[in-house]
Amino acid sequence: MSDTKKTTIVLFSGEYDKAMAAYIIANGAAAYDHEVTIFHTFWGLNALRKDEHVPVKKSFMEKIFGKMMPRGADKMGLSKMNYMGMGQKMIKDVMKKHNALPLPQLVEMAQEQDVKLIACTMTMDLLGLRKEELLDEIEYAGVAAYIGDSEDGNITLFI
Amino acid sequence: MSDTKKTTIVLFSGEYDKAMAAYIIANGAAAYDHEVTIFHTFWGLNALRKDEHVPVKKSFMEKIFGKMMPRGADKMGLSKMNYMGMGQKMIKDVMKKHNALPLPQLVEMAQEQDVKLIACTMTMDLLGLRKEELLDEIEYAGVAAYIGDSEDGNITLFI
Amino acid sequence: MSDTKKTTIVLFSGEYDKAMAAYIIANGAAAYDHEVTIFHTFWGLNALRKDEHVPVKKSFMEKIFGKMMPRGADKMGLSKMNYMGMGQKMIKDVMKKHNALPLPQLVEMAQEQDVKLIACTMTMDLLGLRKEELLDEIEYAGVAAYIGDSEDGNITLFI
Repeated sequence: MSDTKKTTIVLFSGEYDKAMAAYIIANGAAAYDHEVTIFHTFWGLNALRKDEHVPVKKSFMEKIFGKMMPRGADKMGLSKMNYMGMGQKMIKDVMKKHNALPLPQLVEMAQEQDVKLIACTMTMDLLGLRKEELLDEIEYAGVAAYIGDSEDGNITLFI
Repeated sequence: MSDTKKTTIVLFSGEYDKAMAAYIIANGAAAYDHEVTIFHTFWGLNALRKDEHVPVKKSFMEKIFGKMMPRGADKMGLSKMNYMGMGQKMIKDVMKKHNALPLPQLVEMAQEQDVKLIACTMTMDLLGLRKEELLDEIEYAGVAAYIGDSEDGNITLFI
Repeated sequence: MSDTKKTTIVLFSGEYDKAMAAYIIANGAAAYDHEVTIFHTFWGLNALRKDEHVPVKKSFMEKIFGKMMPRGADKMGLSKMNYMGMGQKMIKDVMKKHNALPLPQLVEMAQEQDVKLIACTMTMDLLGLRKEELLDEIEYAGVAAYIGDSEDGNITLFI
């Protein structure tokens, strides 16, 4: 085991506030020279979606899933007090006032700090998400890669 | 500390997708020769319920809880897009098409791979669940056992 | 690294049952001589609110957030089966019958066992919570302190 500290986060949840927490911890750990991985699975994959429509061939079911899920980090709702998006707008306004970085910028910052962003290929298949629909410069892997990354980790979280 | 790696998961959540994530990680870690424990507490206990009705003596309150909670892994709903069970049916159809293992089989596989499945006795008491209602060949313990198992662990997750 | 074991928990969720799980694990780990930290962020901050109204100067938005969020551990709802508070009342009745400690007492016990209770200053700002509104004898810090505390930890959880 090398001396480099490691933080690995499974981002399962598809909510704006939970994804924010994941990315704030990831960016914090990267600033302290940790090797950081965020493994996006299930609804957490939505944080990696591009915000524009990407024309790809999908089955009927996959189209429905695609339409129902938020297209990108900025469109995710809150886990509490969402109130049809009103709570989310309030949080975003407050964040702006406090100069807190919104989620899409937190994702960008993570990429600049070399946080490894992984999309879980098994759940991409289940939800019908294609590589073309997700951000560039991310990695694709399954649970084996997650175990390999985490087993020597210092901080391991499931969010 | 021995050389065997350890993964311990607290399964608190009672949703199908979260329990799936827990069992996929557990089975993955077991495949990589980790000693794996899933400690089922609160709503996560429902993943261990037998799917048939088991006649046991219960107080009025315990009967209500028993009726309101899903009877076994297969009957749990989704954490997102459940839509009164429709989203869950969709996910199950898609899983079938992709040959992904449904939750009850993931639980079986975990038992075959000697993943230690523990039911939290304190929350069993609170929710009025009896040993007869839960799967055979699981273990019963409290928070002390969880701490003992996890403190030398490599991967520790709360799901 | 010293021989003392360490448990660090991020309490993000604002539900009674999840906060109970966090505090039960924290108290258990403290009983086994772990150094324990609970880092309260986002909705988890509500577990640290005093239950009386504290007159502080707030913006209009902050007042709204303050009114919508539960004032203290005892007023938090359940993550499942809350049914407008009915499920929560049922759980509390059952806990009483089983002599299980309610959440406010679990928080007290944690303080008596020297569990370090930290309020995340960044999310306090976002939600408009002031130090005067939170319990006495807690600490205030940001993500850097969390990383420092957790990177040599044995058990790291996000709840």
